[in-house]
Amino acid sequence: MTIEQIIERKRDKLKLTKEEIDFFIKNYVNGEIPDYQASALLMAIYINGMDEEETANLTESMRFSGEVWDLSDIQGIKVDKHSTGGVGDKVSLILGPMIASLGAKLAKMSGRGLGHTGGTLDKLESIPGMKIELSYEKFKKQIEEIGIAIIGQNKNLNPADKKIYALRDVTGTVGSIPLIASSIMSKKLASGADAILLDVKYGSGAFMKTVSEAKKLAQLMVNIGKKLNKDVRAEVTDMDQPLGCAIGNSLEIKEVIQTLKGKGPWDLNEICLSSGAILLEQAKIYKNRNEARKELEKTLLDGRAFNKFIEFVKAQGGDISYILHPEKFEIAKNEINIYSKTRGYIKKIDALSIGEASMHLGAGREKIDDKIDMSAGIVLNKKIGDSIFENELLCTLFTNKDDVKEIIDDVYNAFTIVPEKVNVDKKLTHNIIE
Amino acid sequence: MTIEQIIERKRDKLKLTKEEIDFFIKNYVNGEIPDYQASALLMAIYINGMDEEETANLTESMRFSGEVWDLSDIQGIKVDKHSTGGVGDKVSLILGPMIASLGAKLAKMSGRGLGHTGGTLDKLESIPGMKIELSYEKFKKQIEEIGIAIIGQNKNLNPADKKIYALRDVTGTVGSIPLIASSIMSKKLASGADAILLDVKYGSGAFMKTVSEAKKLAQLMVNIGKKLNKDVRAEVTDMDQPLGCAIGNSLEIKEVIQTLKGKGPWDLNEICLSSGAILLEQAKIYKNRNEARKELEKTLLDGRAFNKFIEFVKAQGGDISYILHPEKFEIAKNEINIYSKTRGYIKKIDALSIGEASMHLGAGREKIDDKIDMSAGIVLNKKIGDSIFENELLCTLFTNKDDVKEIIDDVYNAFTIVPEKVNVDKKLTHNIIE
Repeated sequence: MTIEQIIERKRDKLKLTKEEIDFFIKNYVNGEIPDYQASALLMAIYINGMDEEETANLTESMRFSGEVWDLSDIQGIKVDKHSTGGVGDKVSLILGPMIASLGAKLAKMSGRGLGHTGGTLDKLESIPGMKIELSYEKFKKQIEEIGIAIIGQNKNLNPADKKIYALRDVTGTVGSIPLIASSIMSKKLASGADAILLDVKYGSGAFMKTVSEAKKLAQLMVNIGKKLNKDVRAEVTDMDQPLGCAIGNSLEIKEVIQTLKGKGPWDLNEICLSSGAILLEQAKIYKNRNEARKELEKTLLDGRAFNKFIEFVKAQGGDISYILHPEKFEIAKNEINIYSKTRGYIKKIDALSIGEASMHLGAGREKIDDKIDMSAGIVLNKKIGDSIFENELLCTLFTNKDDVKEIIDDVYNAFTIVPEKVNVDKKLTHNIIE
Repeated sequence: MTIEQIIERKRDKLKLTKEEIDFFIKNYVNGEIPDYQASALLMAIYINGMDEEETANLTESMRFSGEVWDLSDIQGIKVDKHSTGGVGDKVSLILGPMIASLGAKLAKMSGRGLGHTGGTLDKLESIPGMKIELSYEKFKKQIEEIGIAIIGQNKNLNPADKKIYALRDVTGTVGSIPLIASSIMSKKLASGADAILLDVKYGSGAFMKTVSEAKKLAQLMVNIGKKLNKDVRAEVTDMDQPLGCAIGNSLEIKEVIQTLKGKGPWDLNEICLSSGAILLEQAKIYKNRNEARKELEKTLLDGRAFNKFIEFVKAQGGDISYILHPEKFEIAKNEINIYSKTRGYIKKIDALSIGEASMHLGAGREKIDDKIDMSAGIVLNKKIGDSIFENELLCTLFTNKDDVKEIIDDVYNAFTIVPEKVNVDKKLTHNIIE
């Protein structure tokens, strides 16, 4: 078996065997296969695809390419949750404390932001002192003691994914459903949870642009879970406007705090309650989702969720005075209000444009080693369906940069305002795949 | 413009612009674009193709990626000839002296052999003393003085092709018609001839397996020539059995000498006469091919072609005593005769198997830096259509290796012998595209 033969087979639309996939992953990780052969194979996979069995085999090969963490000595069902990422997506930081306050054990590894999407780790690091690297032992201990730990991807886990992801990023092979599925699933499986909930986003601000693509990806990952005997479920949710009102790291932490106190925007509440109910069912803490949802609502009102967040921040070294007094967070030098030039109703808020504008304000990275300005970002004053008057506040930009005229225009243009009323069904439109 | 965008456009089946292709070639040659991005683009081109205009633009970009030789100060029309390569293909070494003896000017750069195909340079180097590297000035002077020079690809010409070819070789992207066409044409155009004749082979021993693929490649190259105002013509000829009887470097030189003396096998004669007639028409030395062909036949009988070969070998430093006394060539230690186990007629001689067997005997390279045994190879005693008795000689293997049992079996199995008579029309079946 040679890598050339494997490349040629996928190039010619043939199905790769488990042995061929193992050969590729093993020899790519150990450096025997150079990047230029791997990228040719990845492009062939991008164009010619992989079926479910190939994708499951690729997932398993990647999962076992490095250390695999075993959480079985922690009592109970350990759950994990993953979102394919979007704009203003701070769900895990709210949902995690909510379910943990009801006895669930969330063992989560997160990623950093790139391009228009933010990353949970960056958001956490905007809390002074917060550590996102824990050893295997500390990670387990924290889950056992307080029911929640959120850390960065440990570098010893799944080295295959790290190498492949970096290569895909520069070779036009990111948007491939089997490659996305195997990357997500191999990471989740290597970190040791028993049950996994996936939130697959679609829409302008998401990776999958259409609901049908998102469903395809979600179904594929759920099926891989079945093949590998894991309880994997997926929600397919829309990312046509940013989630909640805040975009940008410490701005989002402030919204997390508000939401944990029961004062969050409706869309953020909805997704946290929906995902939380599924996770509590997966954790076998509640028998049905309605019951779980009712109890979850209470955690937002009676302080349980907020207190759990405090415990979590404290356990990972964060300064909880910032959580108790969010006004302590540094505020960006420039605060720029954008007003509506017309009256009407908000019909659309392009999440991609808002995400990119936020990145340009300093909140995100264009390239992997760019530095982030924790205080930068955007706070929306209006969401889809809201009415607006002429000269009423649409949103506020926060930045330490000075020349942001173009960004202001981009943000304004991200809003579509129409004269007629826009009806919004304030329920989450989503599909659950299980 | 970024290379990622260019990769993504070809990945998505879009047509690349001249500017995008120039950007890729320029920055790949200067090292700004790494191999792993180039190989992703090559795979996307392999799978999604390129149209004629893209291929012509790629050809031009590659042609001008380094030095371009200008032969315009040599009087008359300079011709060049290229074969896509096969087994036992020593045509240029016969045809060159034939047309040069009638006043044509052949300015040819050749390649080395790889895998089952031999290379003209390796064959030439089996003549002791023969130099295949000439400076620009010496190359021109030799063409002017004796009408023929055959040298290796100069390293300053077309660096893009060298880098791309090496990468294609290890990334499963060799067999792509636009990549093959641009590679051949950019080399030929950079070396400065006014008129080019291409011999596109098809069949088991050739790169193109079917006549329709070969015609497609030939037509594409002829069309690129038209776009770039060059007189480019192509023959599409079959490589279903080895060309002539000798396969292997010095063995083929001996067959070249025989053929130049009018004692060559019919198929080798035919292709030399056919290609020669087209080249003499392109050189405007003869007005029609029939006339040219008649004169070419004479050069094989009256010593003109042979004497021109002597002049050519001498000019490039070769020891002409080997040409005058071919028995001086070193003979391999082991000479193994293979006899027929049955009587009948030769229906098929699989060129690919014969080419590979010859390589394994020592005559070729499996990898680019393998060393060649100049004396190794195979001499066929029978060709398609010939009758054979039981225990009659089929062919002879020449090798300095000792354990060749498997090779003997492979060679025997390359022959298909049937009881019924096999009719062969001893004319070249070929298509001329112009």
